[in-house]
Amino acid sequence: MHPDVSQKTVGRWSLYRRLLDALSRTEQRYILSSDLARRSGVTASQARRDLMHLEVAGGARGYEVQALLRAINAQLAPAEPQAVALIGVGNLGRALLSYFQGRRPTLQLVAAFDIDPHKIGRVIHGCRCYPLDELEAILEREAARIVILTLPGEAVATLGPRLIKAGIRAVLNFAPSHLDLPPSIHVEDVDITMSLEKAAFFAATQEQRS
Amino acid sequence: MHPDVSQKTVGRWSLYRRLLDALSRTEQRYILSSDLARRSGVTASQARRDLMHLEVAGGARGYEVQALLRAINAQLAPAEPQAVALIGVGNLGRALLSYFQGRRPTLQLVAAFDIDPHKIGRVIHGCRCYPLDELEAILEREAARIVILTLPGEAVATLGPRLIKAGIRAVLNFAPSHLDLPPSIHVEDVDITMSLEKAAFFAATQEQRS
Repeated sequence: MHPDVSQKTVGRWSLYRRLLDALSRTEQRYILSSDLARRSGVTASQARRDLMHLEVAGGARGYEVQALLRAINAQLAPAEPQAVALIGVGNLGRALLSYFQGRRPTLQLVAAFDIDPHKIGRVIHGCRCYPLDELEAILEREAARIVILTLPGEAVATLGPRLIKAGIRAVLNFAPSHLDLPPSIHVEDVDITMSLEKAAFFAATQEQRS
Repeated sequence: MHPDVSQKTVGRWSLYRRLLDALSRTEQRYILSSDLARRSGVTASQARRDLMHLEVAGGARGYEVQALLRAINAQLAPAEPQAVALIGVGNLGRALLSYFQGRRPTLQLVAAFDIDPHKIGRVIHGCRCYPLDELEAILEREAARIVILTLPGEAVATLGPRLIKAGIRAVLNFAPSHLDLPPSIHVEDVDITMSLEKAAFFAATQEQRS
């Protein structure tokens, strides 16, 4: 693992992995970095630099798909499975439980949290739902260091100190609120509403122009 | 509307709007741009520049929350409702139908598409599901110029020419594949698996360091 590799490179490795994974199920055995770049929507020189970190030799026909896949897996997949918890079992939370469950054997959804008594105690898409009050205790017991936040913005604002106390190392934040966490905790923001509004804004702008 | 405003500014307006919307339901009537910046996780000078585009006057107590909200709404919300379609009614697609339905009155989910005969013809979270074969005809009929893609990567690859033909102006793409579309069509990529893998990578890196 390269602790000094950039966040963007890690993101692109993840993207390349999925493209290579799809390719590995076809007849194609080799791929040129320029072809991988085109399919990923990045520049050819960017893809070359990203692949250089992997120390896989490429020939005239390009890189061997399986060799690249193994090298990226070795970088991205931790040797030990990592436990993940999800906070906020609304529509989006429920969908993500179902979406991620079993998708990556090394990322295990071990607990979900909510404040709704109708959800607490139930197993939702294979994941047990606990009361939010017990957050720190359950995260500790399950050794979960990664949390997915799918609760309303206001609810997230007060969660920071509790996540720090629970020893969380990375957050995937779907709430529109900014989390005030120390830089040692990695925060990955995914704002779905903002993305749709941006798309709508540019669609309307196109309309005016045309 | 400013057709020349940057994509990032539009994204931040959308984020500010949600923060202001939450504030408008509290007692707080004014906000300093530096405070809005802190809550949004952007620099103070960035927030000041973003607000300058809105041409709202700020005083010593900062900006009036309601005035800012109205100004951002005027920028972001098109005068007429925009029709949105969703392609791929799997777990994620279903969750997004439920998540977006009724969230913004100006963004209306008018049609969903799938190839599964068990889904076709059903109304899912208030949205009718049509066969993917009828994509162009239904998009035309509903005047939908924005599509949300929630299908597997391989399925997306062949969709480009059909979206162009249907006159699509913006795409919110949840599939890991890059869409080959002309620059006049705005593509907003949201890659959830990549985001979780990035979070996990940095969580594991932290673990090694500590």
